[in-house]
Amino acid sequence: MVNVSVIGATGYVGAELLRLLSAHPDVHINKAVSKSFAGKEMKDIYANFIPNQSVGLTGEESGPDAGDFVFLCLPHGQSLKAAPALLASGHKVIDLSGDFRYDDTDIYEKWYGIPHTAKQENASAVYGLPEFFGDDVKKSSFTANPGCYTTTSILALAPLLAEGVIRENGIVIDAKSGVTGAGRKEKLAFSYCETADNFKAYSVPLHRHTSEIEEQLSKLSGKDICLLFTPHLLPVKRGILATIYAELAEGVTAEQISKVYESYYADAPFTHVLPHGKLPELKYVVGSNNCMIGFELSERTGRIIIVSCTDNLIKGAAGQAIQNFNLMNGLDETLGLPRTAWYL
Amino acid sequence: MVNVSVIGATGYVGAELLRLLSAHPDVHINKAVSKSFAGKEMKDIYANFIPNQSVGLTGEESGPDAGDFVFLCLPHGQSLKAAPALLASGHKVIDLSGDFRYDDTDIYEKWYGIPHTAKQENASAVYGLPEFFGDDVKKSSFTANPGCYTTTSILALAPLLAEGVIRENGIVIDAKSGVTGAGRKEKLAFSYCETADNFKAYSVPLHRHTSEIEEQLSKLSGKDICLLFTPHLLPVKRGILATIYAELAEGVTAEQISKVYESYYADAPFTHVLPHGKLPELKYVVGSNNCMIGFELSERTGRIIIVSCTDNLIKGAAGQAIQNFNLMNGLDETLGLPRTAWYL
Amino acid sequence: MVNVSVIGATGYVGAELLRLLSAHPDVHINKAVSKSFAGKEMKDIYANFIPNQSVGLTGEESGPDAGDFVFLCLPHGQSLKAAPALLASGHKVIDLSGDFRYDDTDIYEKWYGIPHTAKQENASAVYGLPEFFGDDVKKSSFTANPGCYTTTSILALAPLLAEGVIRENGIVIDAKSGVTGAGRKEKLAFSYCETADNFKAYSVPLHRHTSEIEEQLSKLSGKDICLLFTPHLLPVKRGILATIYAELAEGVTAEQISKVYESYYADAPFTHVLPHGKLPELKYVVGSNNCMIGFELSERTGRIIIVSCTDNLIKGAAGQAIQNFNLMNGLDETLGLPRTAWYL
Amino acid sequence: MVNVSVIGATGYVGAELLRLLSAHPDVHINKAVSKSFAGKEMKDIYANFIPNQSVGLTGEESGPDAGDFVFLCLPHGQSLKAAPALLASGHKVIDLSGDFRYDDTDIYEKWYGIPHTAKQENASAVYGLPEFFGDDVKKSSFTANPGCYTTTSILALAPLLAEGVIRENGIVIDAKSGVTGAGRKEKLAFSYCETADNFKAYSVPLHRHTSEIEEQLSKLSGKDICLLFTPHLLPVKRGILATIYAELAEGVTAEQISKVYESYYADAPFTHVLPHGKLPELKYVVGSNNCMIGFELSERTGRIIIVSCTDNLIKGAAGQAIQNFNLMNGLDETLGLPRTAWYL
Repeated sequence: MVNVSVIGATGYVGAELLRLLSAHPDVHINKAVSKSFAGKEMKDIYANFIPNQSVGLTGEESGPDAGDFVFLCLPHGQSLKAAPALLASGHKVIDLSGDFRYDDTDIYEKWYGIPHTAKQENASAVYGLPEFFGDDVKKSSFTANPGCYTTTSILALAPLLAEGVIRENGIVIDAKSGVTGAGRKEKLAFSYCETADNFKAYSVPLHRHTSEIEEQLSKLSGKDICLLFTPHLLPVKRGILATIYAELAEGVTAEQISKVYESYYADAPFTHVLPHGKLPELKYVVGSNNCMIGFELSERTGRIIIVSCTDNLIKGAAGQAIQNFNLMNGLDETLGLPRTAWYL
Repeated sequence: MVNVSVIGATGYVGAELLRLLSAHPDVHINKAVSKSFAGKEMKDIYANFIPNQSVGLTGEESGPDAGDFVFLCLPHGQSLKAAPALLASGHKVIDLSGDFRYDDTDIYEKWYGIPHTAKQENASAVYGLPEFFGDDVKKSSFTANPGCYTTTSILALAPLLAEGVIRENGIVIDAKSGVTGAGRKEKLAFSYCETADNFKAYSVPLHRHTSEIEEQLSKLSGKDICLLFTPHLLPVKRGILATIYAELAEGVTAEQISKVYESYYADAPFTHVLPHGKLPELKYVVGSNNCMIGFELSERTGRIIIVSCTDNLIKGAAGQAIQNFNLMNGLDETLGLPRTAWYL
Repeated sequence: MVNVSVIGATGYVGAELLRLLSAHPDVHINKAVSKSFAGKEMKDIYANFIPNQSVGLTGEESGPDAGDFVFLCLPHGQSLKAAPALLASGHKVIDLSGDFRYDDTDIYEKWYGIPHTAKQENASAVYGLPEFFGDDVKKSSFTANPGCYTTTSILALAPLLAEGVIRENGIVIDAKSGVTGAGRKEKLAFSYCETADNFKAYSVPLHRHTSEIEEQLSKLSGKDICLLFTPHLLPVKRGILATIYAELAEGVTAEQISKVYESYYADAPFTHVLPHGKLPELKYVVGSNNCMIGFELSERTGRIIIVSCTDNLIKGAAGQAIQNFNLMNGLDETLGLPRTAWYL
Repeated sequence: MVNVSVIGATGYVGAELLRLLSAHPDVHINKAVSKSFAGKEMKDIYANFIPNQSVGLTGEESGPDAGDFVFLCLPHGQSLKAAPALLASGHKVIDLSGDFRYDDTDIYEKWYGIPHTAKQENASAVYGLPEFFGDDVKKSSFTANPGCYTTTSILALAPLLAEGVIRENGIVIDAKSGVTGAGRKEKLAFSYCETADNFKAYSVPLHRHTSEIEEQLSKLSGKDICLLFTPHLLPVKRGILATIYAELAEGVTAEQISKVYESYYADAPFTHVLPHGKLPELKYVVGSNNCMIGFELSERTGRIIIVSCTDNLIKGAAGQAIQNFNLMNGLDETLGLPRTAWYL
């Protein structure tokens, strides 16, 4: 049993994390910290938590107990302030914000517009994408959990770029996300009447995740990646589907693409590449920690079309955090994580 | 051409009213007043208004011009303050709030918790349900537009109560409404992630429309009606469906029920009663100014089940206001009003 | 480990059952039988099943192996034919259809219009509502899993009727269900364009579940219950919310109601009654095996309004079947069942 | 008053056309022909049509009366058979299928897999995109109504390609459509439970509309256009949003782009280009005959991102057909067409 503290328990990512942790066989939820709802119980805010499984919410002052494993589910900028002290007190920490995801803090400062005040801690953070950095995560005591769009995009592109079967120029990621991606917000733009039956692009052409995708893909491929990323808001609660366009390298076949993916993900428990010509749908992954990838080739234009799907709250946030938690604690990587999507 | 002013133009009811009025052949929109967005154009707030049809928004101080017909789309309590001066300046007025809907202002004060400060004006207001008070509306210069749940419920029940084919005791109205009924609000409870795929009852057991339904039904039937009304929030934007349960009077047949309805609504352009056994669905009315009513009898329990549907923004608000406007201006009752629902 | 066979694996209930069973720690899925898709794999039909967890589908001829625990997820009428042979070969069986839910097969024959051809087996079937018949289920080798509307309604009403705090006459159940309740069907009426943004009543006034609710409530209360049940189709995939109206017995208070419920459900792991005045919403239960119940009193009309919610595919079908399975196999009643709803 | 016949009245496009025509001031609906529902009334199939506006449905044998203007709403392949006789009898015809949209019938035969058996009639057909071919439509007696994806894509791209401000190579159209685009179908893939909360790409990489877009863009720009078009299915009923990526020609500015669009669409009543940096959303157009276009530039990648939106049933089908009808009959182009989208 590992004692855990969740800081920022009542945002959508925090709530999803608590939901998943409450079914994890090796976890004891010791503290759930919420600035906004200290003194209440989780079931008062999220009535899906039943009385006998509800958790008391404490304020920030009553931080984690010594030895607690800490999940930081704070907004960008706040983790930056909270993490150093926690690390200094010897806590193992997974941060789910964007604050510690960049090797190069200049990029962070440019795209987030926030001075990076914890560069030393940043240098010690491992980028928690288990498919690529699982071994580092196992040894780490501080993991930066990747973004949702980022996870979905990198898993689709990194193997192909690293093996040179697609060109590094001209990549377009047209991504579509459910509304939980925006968090728990009292904003008109995310109200039911404004969002239902609607669809729109947003943050065009400079969404922050562009920079995170580019830094990781550059690192993983050894090339200097500059791409175009366009997010859209789907009228669904959960799920990301990214349609990715890239130029094929000369003479590359579908069989080769499949082999490249297989060589990277044959043993990955949560990343599944479909046979050539089968494309995943949102419902194949929502509710699970899976990433599903499919592709098709367009001979007429010399391009590959890749479709990659995740549940933004699970593989894109809380689930991947638990996957990293398992690795950091020497547990089976899949423990406590949903492997079959809901479909219905 | 009638010059009209819409006060409270940027709430959902105001916006729907402007949308419908912009297609009305005998209307010129002279003023659109919005406290929140004065100085902007309608298309800045509701981008469905195209440039060449957009309307400039003015602040409250620049009220309606002399002779303008005025639609008041203000929240409850604010119409109470605004109406007297407008009426005193000789404007014809339709008020879409609850402030002038009650014959008995004591009932208003009790259920709305607001002292009624315009009792004289209240006494001159006609209750704008054209199916029952159309002749009064024609002669009126001040019309109180009925509530959405109220319209849907009264049209279903009034003929049957008035003719004594159902019992006045034990009536239950189980009503379900789309989210636009709550208006344009920055509230977490109406955010997409909280509302989509959800369903709930609210304001149980004392929603305000109970009192409006009871007062009108009592007046129309000559009986003292006390009933149970339970509203629910549907995960759709528009539409109300009320399932209504009442005890049948001894020996009443389906044929008699049909005849009663026909005797009331044969000439009503917007209220349509389906043949016995056919029940309307939400999509039969959404987008139109229609109310559709169907019924079935339960011999086992001696009850009638009535299903009544409207579009809460149209027949339940803006459309019925235009219907009243047409009557008050000697125009064809159906002018400028959508008669065929969207279905898709 | 219990070896199980699921017969009728590719309907929505079968698929949900396999999804849940694949996460059950004490279950080995031995056979998944599908007439329509024999020879394929589960992941070919439901792509949420990932390759390493997918199950091969066999045809009916290759029935369950000796000793398999059998879940029958066949349509009404087909279980009637399949169950006798399975029971005769010594299998323990849970049937999820309506075929064995009635003590009185005359009621079944009348409401389902099918001659009951397995009356002997029917006599041995236990009605699998663990909150009331859990002890019988433990000893049973043949359990009839209750209907979805039925479970939701009985759990709300049985304690109050049994204790006499509500009257047995005049009960109205106005129930609303998600579309999965209709099963996996190629019917225009359940197509996206016909169902989305729509809402309707159906099977008025004689839905089959009326008779199942009445038989069980009569048995549990010792009274002759005749009530009015009206189902509606919600534009959501999952979940049932029933709004129930009943007359209070003279002088009954909210406190008494709460105590009655507590006396019945204090130890029920999945049935939760909220404090007086708090009403459950669909999202409080969807994704879990919970039933949540709340109530409010209307003094003006002498009625109680009860709101009861379940996930129709889980507590209303596959989850309750697993709960019964656990009991029949001497396992912890909650094993492998989701206790926290998804909320998002 | 123009007498019109609608052939194929009960598909979604036919029903939408009848809905719009029933509000058109200069149209008398003389015949509504439906193979599937001959002898019934429109209101029996689409209950949004109220009794006093319902239309009787006749079978194919009772074709249009002499002089009727004919709308053909038949599936691809069937218009091919029906059009020649109608034209030979002197009817003016608008065909809404893909059968007469191609100048080069070889392209049609290749992408639709159907031999073109009416090449002479095809040669006389005008491509009914009023923004570009309005003058030809006015003189035409046979108009081929463009496809929905096609209209949305061509209106966004043609001016920029024709004026050389974007490169002709490497264009990607990532389009998303509501489910009505698939028509009125009893197919599991379009059932509520399979489509709601889901999102997917389909017909990758060779959707038929690719060829229609390419032929028209090539003609309008004088270049040989070969592009990549990927459609997706949105969980909404109506609307298309296309996100389009193209390389900018050297040194092109946002101001230039705006001017190019303005020079093409300043007088177009239904095509509206938003100021640089504002992107349209689905709800800005759904319910109207408008196409809204917005764009943003990505300096980092040298690309333009264009977002173009239409209502697939209106500007993408029935509305554009009426726009063409108005032109062919010397009426105001906007007559009877909704100019303000629903928004709610």
